[in-house]
Amino acid sequence: MQKIFFIICDGLPDRPIAELGYKTPLEAAKTPNLDKIAVDGISGMMHVIDVGVRPGSDTAHLSLFGYDPYAYYSGRGIFECAGIGMEVLPGDIAFRANAGTINDQGLVINRRAGRIESTKPVADLLNGTEIDGVKFLLKESLSHRIGLIARGKNLSPQVSKQDPKQIDVLPLVVKPLDDSSQAKFTAEVLNKFTQLTIDKLKSLPINEERIKAGKLPANIILFRGASWLPENILSFEEKYRLKAAFVGGAPMYRGVAKVLGMDVIEFDQNSGVTGLPNTNVEAKIKKALAIAPDYDFIFIHIKGADTLAEDGNYQGKVEFIEKIDKAMKPLADPNDFLVVVTADHTTSSQLKIHTADPVPVTIKGEGVRTDDINAYSERECAKGRMGQIRGENLMPIIIDLMGLAEMYGA
Amino acid sequence: MQKIFFIICDGLPDRPIAELGYKTPLEAAKTPNLDKIAVDGISGMMHVIDVGVRPGSDTAHLSLFGYDPYAYYSGRGIFECAGIGMEVLPGDIAFRANAGTINDQGLVINRRAGRIESTKPVADLLNGTEIDGVKFLLKESLSHRIGLIARGKNLSPQVSKQDPKQIDVLPLVVKPLDDSSQAKFTAEVLNKFTQLTIDKLKSLPINEERIKAGKLPANIILFRGASWLPENILSFEEKYRLKAAFVGGAPMYRGVAKVLGMDVIEFDQNSGVTGLPNTNVEAKIKKALAIAPDYDFIFIHIKGADTLAEDGNYQGKVEFIEKIDKAMKPLADPNDFLVVVTADHTTSSQLKIHTADPVPVTIKGEGVRTDDINAYSERECAKGRMGQIRGENLMPIIIDLMGLAEMYGA
Repeated sequence: MQKIFFIICDGLPDRPIAELGYKTPLEAAKTPNLDKIAVDGISGMMHVIDVGVRPGSDTAHLSLFGYDPYAYYSGRGIFECAGIGMEVLPGDIAFRANAGTINDQGLVINRRAGRIESTKPVADLLNGTEIDGVKFLLKESLSHRIGLIARGKNLSPQVSKQDPKQIDVLPLVVKPLDDSSQAKFTAEVLNKFTQLTIDKLKSLPINEERIKAGKLPANIILFRGASWLPENILSFEEKYRLKAAFVGGAPMYRGVAKVLGMDVIEFDQNSGVTGLPNTNVEAKIKKALAIAPDYDFIFIHIKGADTLAEDGNYQGKVEFIEKIDKAMKPLADPNDFLVVVTADHTTSSQLKIHTADPVPVTIKGEGVRTDDINAYSERECAKGRMGQIRGENLMPIIIDLMGLAEMYGA
Repeated sequence: MQKIFFIICDGLPDRPIAELGYKTPLEAAKTPNLDKIAVDGISGMMHVIDVGVRPGSDTAHLSLFGYDPYAYYSGRGIFECAGIGMEVLPGDIAFRANAGTINDQGLVINRRAGRIESTKPVADLLNGTEIDGVKFLLKESLSHRIGLIARGKNLSPQVSKQDPKQIDVLPLVVKPLDDSSQAKFTAEVLNKFTQLTIDKLKSLPINEERIKAGKLPANIILFRGASWLPENILSFEEKYRLKAAFVGGAPMYRGVAKVLGMDVIEFDQNSGVTGLPNTNVEAKIKKALAIAPDYDFIFIHIKGADTLAEDGNYQGKVEFIEKIDKAMKPLADPNDFLVVVTADHTTSSQLKIHTADPVPVTIKGEGVRTDDINAYSERECAKGRMGQIRGENLMPIIIDLMGLAEMYGA
């Protein structure tokens, strides 16, 4: 079976920029390897979620992998928790949480506990707490941030936030957002959890030390953005019968991969793989090639172009794209792989935001009906014979090219 | 009114094949007539069911004729029964059935009654039997196969199979697959039918003869694959106000045509029309031209290319396509017809299966906005001005070209 290399260049496409002679950064960059993949493949334009819909990174990736975000997406918390290494199971409710500070009257006086350096002692103290059969899992993230998961039966993400997102007010009482008994139960348990964090954190040794040192104690957990994966979600492997691995640096994408049950490939600290514009793209591609014997589908995520565009740095984006291109050589040279090159969304260097413009997509490999475009770019791929597709179409097309699609009918 | 010639070349499209210099069989074949139709017409690519969905032959044809298979398709039995000449009415439940053999303990010991030569005496004995107001219609098919239809009120196809599909077990008790009273009633009646077939077949004279001759008796009817057409389905003529005829050989397609209420044109045994790769394509086209005065819409089905591709015989497919092309001359020469040439799905000669790759479609006739492609092929039609359509779009486009579409709005 052909190995599938599925390469997402985050925010790669752009709009024409006056300073680049009305070229996009992808058009302005020298990209002989990406162009060769396009010449050898079939190309088109993809509306990752739908025409005119601006994708977030999380919803875009769900859509690219064939999971309708309107059915499966309820918030980013789940991916952030998974991204910092927490196990997230279908049915879990995941939150974006902070260690915060309340005063004697219970008013929130600082949402970040004075930007506390590490929340490890806070998370460790509360991790594993059970309330009414619901287990609370906590793990430290950067600075004041904490991953928070509620695990148990009959939970629902249809609950309001507890974090007031302002100071000098009480934490909000969590309320059910629908009439289900699950939402009611979840709200009750979360309100008990708020009180429990206050009670337990009082006696946390580092808080006594912080107070002595004139710092704000971490004496409450503030949380928002309840999100989950429906219990009926299939893993990527169950859905496509492909063993999949994630090769990338940035935590959110690692989270998406983990939530879908892909193996996350770890890099050692000297690899130079950072998830930032300084990342070592070549190391990612080499690692992907090295693990290929063990997998059917390798999801390679390259973040830098998006970050640079969000900073308005179109020139840096041109250079980063040339760095991606150099790393792509082994995938452009003659090989037996099915190579898919695309993006999760356009990022406009001028607007410094994601936009809904469709993204170029190229597939190269055995059996594809090649076309006659001569570059991998927004405006060349728009002439390609794949035409215009939706993100949801991409995986079915790949699976069918592999000869693995189920027939509908007889 | 222009006569519509609607030509389905089953499994005609393919993927590029190394041995053909990375051409598809359609690209490799010399097809001056098909190319002329494309040059004189407008072309595009069609996803017969949807992007990335691998069509079966039955679901594909429903979709091509504008019947959503997700709404109207429940299984192939209905088309097979219709294809062997049984009348199938909306509301009927049709099955794929066998004459089988059970032993004294009631265990199925052979699912095909020792591949009995003819099931005519079996079908004749049971045909017309009534149970609780439900009439059972049976007709012999090839070898051990039988067409079986249950006709009556309040029936449902939501029932499990009775044929265990293995030996040394009892026939399965049919169970309702949903909570409806219809499914429950249908299951009850079918279980009574099982017992009735056993009781009645005991005294079938050929069974006594078979036993004497040391052969397995046909002493039970085994059935599976309950399927139906919803009672609200419109015939092709009701839906489009076009009088339609079917010109083709293979039974399943004849079944589709019959179920949709088209007239099935019969060929005499010397016509050479077989539904196989050796078929006389020219005779089909001539017959279609001959009957044209009596019809508005003529569905011509040509099976061979699919069969050859499923055998991996890409060279034979090239030759068969050239045979199709020769027969097409009267439709390529100047005429007053609306000519539609397309396929029900791609069949990959390499994978030997149907695939989801879109199929080329060309429409030639008065009023079409011609384009500038120069051949009828997968990769030329992909440049055509019709762009990419779905199977469900094809009939509305044809009806509108004819000036027969209803206006939406005022």
